[in-house]
Amino acid sequence: MTLNEISKVLEINCKSNIEITGLNTLLDSNSNELTFLENKKYIKDLVNTKAAAVLIKKEFLAEVPKGTIALICDEPYIKLALASKLFSQNVVEESGKDCVVDKDTTIQPNVYLGKNASIGSNCIIMAGAFIADNVSIGNNTIIYPNVSIYRDCIIGNDCIIHSGTVIGCDGFGFANTKDGKYIKIYQNGNVIIGNDVEIGANSTIDRAVFKSTIISNGVRIDNLVHIAHNCKLGVGCILTGQVGLAGSTTLHEYVVMGGQSATAGHLEIAPFTTIAARGGVTKTIKEPKKQWAGFPLMDHKTWLKLQSKITKLLK
Amino acid sequence: MTLNEISKVLEINCKSNIEITGLNTLLDSNSNELTFLENKKYIKDLVNTKAAAVLIKKEFLAEVPKGTIALICDEPYIKLALASKLFSQNVVEESGKDCVVDKDTTIQPNVYLGKNASIGSNCIIMAGAFIADNVSIGNNTIIYPNVSIYRDCIIGNDCIIHSGTVIGCDGFGFANTKDGKYIKIYQNGNVIIGNDVEIGANSTIDRAVFKSTIISNGVRIDNLVHIAHNCKLGVGCILTGQVGLAGSTTLHEYVVMGGQSATAGHLEIAPFTTIAARGGVTKTIKEPKKQWAGFPLMDHKTWLKLQSKITKLLK
Amino acid sequence: MTLNEISKVLEINCKSNIEITGLNTLLDSNSNELTFLENKKYIKDLVNTKAAAVLIKKEFLAEVPKGTIALICDEPYIKLALASKLFSQNVVEESGKDCVVDKDTTIQPNVYLGKNASIGSNCIIMAGAFIADNVSIGNNTIIYPNVSIYRDCIIGNDCIIHSGTVIGCDGFGFANTKDGKYIKIYQNGNVIIGNDVEIGANSTIDRAVFKSTIISNGVRIDNLVHIAHNCKLGVGCILTGQVGLAGSTTLHEYVVMGGQSATAGHLEIAPFTTIAARGGVTKTIKEPKKQWAGFPLMDHKTWLKLQSKITKLLK
Repeated sequence: MTLNEISKVLEINCKSNIEITGLNTLLDSNSNELTFLENKKYIKDLVNTKAAAVLIKKEFLAEVPKGTIALICDEPYIKLALASKLFSQNVVEESGKDCVVDKDTTIQPNVYLGKNASIGSNCIIMAGAFIADNVSIGNNTIIYPNVSIYRDCIIGNDCIIHSGTVIGCDGFGFANTKDGKYIKIYQNGNVIIGNDVEIGANSTIDRAVFKSTIISNGVRIDNLVHIAHNCKLGVGCILTGQVGLAGSTTLHEYVVMGGQSATAGHLEIAPFTTIAARGGVTKTIKEPKKQWAGFPLMDHKTWLKLQSKITKLLK
Repeated sequence: MTLNEISKVLEINCKSNIEITGLNTLLDSNSNELTFLENKKYIKDLVNTKAAAVLIKKEFLAEVPKGTIALICDEPYIKLALASKLFSQNVVEESGKDCVVDKDTTIQPNVYLGKNASIGSNCIIMAGAFIADNVSIGNNTIIYPNVSIYRDCIIGNDCIIHSGTVIGCDGFGFANTKDGKYIKIYQNGNVIIGNDVEIGANSTIDRAVFKSTIISNGVRIDNLVHIAHNCKLGVGCILTGQVGLAGSTTLHEYVVMGGQSATAGHLEIAPFTTIAARGGVTKTIKEPKKQWAGFPLMDHKTWLKLQSKITKLLK
Repeated sequence: MTLNEISKVLEINCKSNIEITGLNTLLDSNSNELTFLENKKYIKDLVNTKAAAVLIKKEFLAEVPKGTIALICDEPYIKLALASKLFSQNVVEESGKDCVVDKDTTIQPNVYLGKNASIGSNCIIMAGAFIADNVSIGNNTIIYPNVSIYRDCIIGNDCIIHSGTVIGCDGFGFANTKDGKYIKIYQNGNVIIGNDVEIGANSTIDRAVFKSTIISNGVRIDNLVHIAHNCKLGVGCILTGQVGLAGSTTLHEYVVMGGQSATAGHLEIAPFTTIAARGGVTKTIKEPKKQWAGFPLMDHKTWLKLQSKITKLLK
C-alpha cells in the first residue's frame, strides 16, 4: 500500500507513493514503515527514526529527521489506530496450503489446523486445540486440549502448553476519540515462544501490536498468568500462578515472579531479580540479582522491617 | 406455576392460586413474581415491593404492603434457594428450532449451535465455540475459538470475544443450611452485551440470578477478568487484566479499572472514575471523575502521600 | 522397575533389586516407594520414613532408618526429577477399553472420551469437554462446554463444573540445575473431587506430584481460582473469585476465602477460618473460627484498627 493511499484513508494530505509495508515504533521502524509520535516523552526517539513517514502534531515538525515524511495531524494516535486496520490480517484465511504435520505426531479428533500451518515431529496435539493459520510448532511439543493458538504464532521444540491457554490473542489497544469512542488498534504482530517452555492452564499471552511478544527458551509459566502485548521474557524466567505483566515490559534472564505479583508496562527488570508474591513493580529495576517485595515495591529486607514497624504501630 | 404449588414444595401454608412467573428482588418484582426478605437492611424496599408474594420472617409481617402475600418462614433465603430450582431452565433443550444463521456468516467446524439460537450477518464463529440454546448474536461479531456462551445470553453487533472466555456461567450463589449444606440458588437470569464490545481471553462474565448482568455499548474488557452476577457496566467502561468485580456492582459510564483492581459487591461507582492498578473498592463512589488507588481505597494523591510517609517511617 | 534399574539411570551405585512402584514423600512412602531429602528441615521425617530407599546427601546418612536404603548423591532433588520421568504416565493411552457411560447420561457432540474412563448415570457432558484416560465421573454430574479433565482424575456425584475449567493439569514443579536448566518433575498424582462440588468457569486445579490433590464434599469454588498441586480442601470450603492457593496447603473444613485472597504453600488453615478479600496467608493458622485480613495477614479487627491509624497518619 502506498503512503498516498494510506493518507487518503486518514484524510491527511500527502503525495508520496512510497510503498509502506507496515506500522512500527519510532525506533524499530525501517524505511518502508509508518510510525507515530503521540507522547512528548518519546521525542528523543523521533530524532533517530528511520521510518518512511511519521504521524505527528504540527508542533513537533522541526524534530522530524530528513529522510522521514511528516504526516501532520491533530490526533496521531487515532490516525495510527485507523492505519492499523489497513494492515490487519484476515481473521481466517480462505486459501493456502493444508497444514503440514511431520512424522510420529499425533493429532487427536476435533483439532483445527489452519492454512499454511506446520507441526514438527513427535508432537501431540490434543482434542479441541485450535492451531490457526501460519502457526508453526516445533518438534516434541505437547499441546493439551482446548488450547487456542492464534495466527502467525511460533512455538519451539520440547514445549508443553496446558489446557485452555491462549497464545496470540489481541493485545489490549485502542485510541480514545473526543466523543468517547474507542478505535481498535489492530494487533498485527505475533507471539514467539522458544524451546523447552512450559505454560500452565488458562494463561493468556497477547500478540504484539507490532513485531513480537517473546517468550525465550526455558521459561516456566504457571496457571492463570496474563502476559500483555510486546512483553519480552528472557531465558529461564519463572512466572508463578496469577502473575500479570502489563504491555511492553521486558524481563531479562532468570527473573522469578511470585504468585499474584505484577508489573506495570514499559519497564525493564534486571537479570536474576526475584519479586515476592503480590509484589507490584512500577519502575524499572536496573540492578541484577536483588530480591523485592510489596506494593509499592521495596527491597525485600526493607519490606520485612516495615511489617515489624506496623506491628509496633498497632501496640 | 401457582403460588399454591410453590408453597407446597417449600412446606409453607398458602392457598392462593395466583400464577407466579419467576423470582426477583423486592424492588424489581412485578405482580406475578415471588420475592424475599432475609437481611433487615432491605426492609425499606419491602414497603415498596409490587411482588405477588414475599418469603419473610414473622417479625417483619407488619411491613408487608397490602397487595403482597406474606409467606412466613424461619429461613427465607433457604426457601428462596429451593424455589429457584422450580424456575430453573433445562441445561440443554431437547427440542426447538435449529439455530438461524444470517448471510455472510462463517461457522467453523466443531461449533455447537443450540436450539432457537440466532446469529446475525457477517459474523465469524470459530472452532470449538459453544453457542447455547436461545443465544442471540448480532451482526459483524467475531467469536474466537473455544468461547462458551451459556443459554439465553444476548451479544450485540460489532463485538469481539477472544478465546476461552465464558459468558453466562452461573453466578456464585447458595444458601447455607444450619447443618452445613449449601443449597444452590439457580441463576435464572442471563448476560446482555451491547454493541462494539471487545472482551479478552479467558475472562468470565456470570449470568444474573434474576434478570441480567449488563455490559453496555463500547465496553473494553481485557484478559482473565471476572465479572460476577448482576453487575452492570455503563457505556465505555474499561477493565484491564485480572480485574475482579463482586456481585451486583454497578459501574457507571467510562469507569476505568487498572490491572488486578477489584470491587466488593453491591456498590456503585460514579461516571469517569479511575481506579489505579490493585485498587480495592469497598464503598460506593458517588463523586464522578475522581482518581483512586490503594486498598483500602483512597484518593490517588493521598495514596502517593502515604507512600512517602512510609518511606520516612523506614528511615 | 527395580531400584537397581532406577539407580543406573540416576548414575548412583546401588545393587538392590527391590521392586519400586513409585515416588513419594518421606512420611507417605511405603516399603515399595522411593523418597528423597533435599531440605534439612524435613530431617525429622527422615527418621520415620518407611520408604524402600531415599535419595540423600552424604551428610545425612546417619539419620537414615534401618529398613531404608540410602542412595547417596550431591543433588537429591535433581535425581528425584530424573526419577519422576521413569514413573510418568503416557500423555495419551493407545489401548484400553472404551469409556463406559451409564444410563440417562447425555454426551454432546465433540466430546473426547478417553480409554478406561467411566461416566455415571444422569450426567450431562457438554460439547468440547475433554475426559481423559482413566477419568471417573459419578452420577448426576454436569460438565459444561470446553472443560478439560486430565487423566486419572476422579469426580464425584452431583457436581457441576463450569466452562473452561481445567482439572488435573500438571503442578508447577521442576528442579534447577547449576547451569540454569529446569528439569521437569513429572506430576504422577491426580485430583480427587468429592460429591456435591460446584466449580466456576476458567478455574484450574493441578494434579498432585505424588498421590492426590483433594477437593472434599460440598466445596464451592468460584471463577478463575488457582489451586496448586497437593492442596487439600476440607468439607464445605468456599473459595471466591480469583483466589490462589500455592502447593501442598491444607484448608480444613468450612474455610472461607474472599476474592483475590491467597495462601503460600505448605500451610494449614484451621476449620471455619475466614480470610477477607485480598488477605494473604503466609503462616499456618491453628486456631479455628477466626477472621483474618490483610497482607501480611492479621486479625480482622486489628486490620480495621490499622486502617484508622493510617488515616490519622495522613492528617
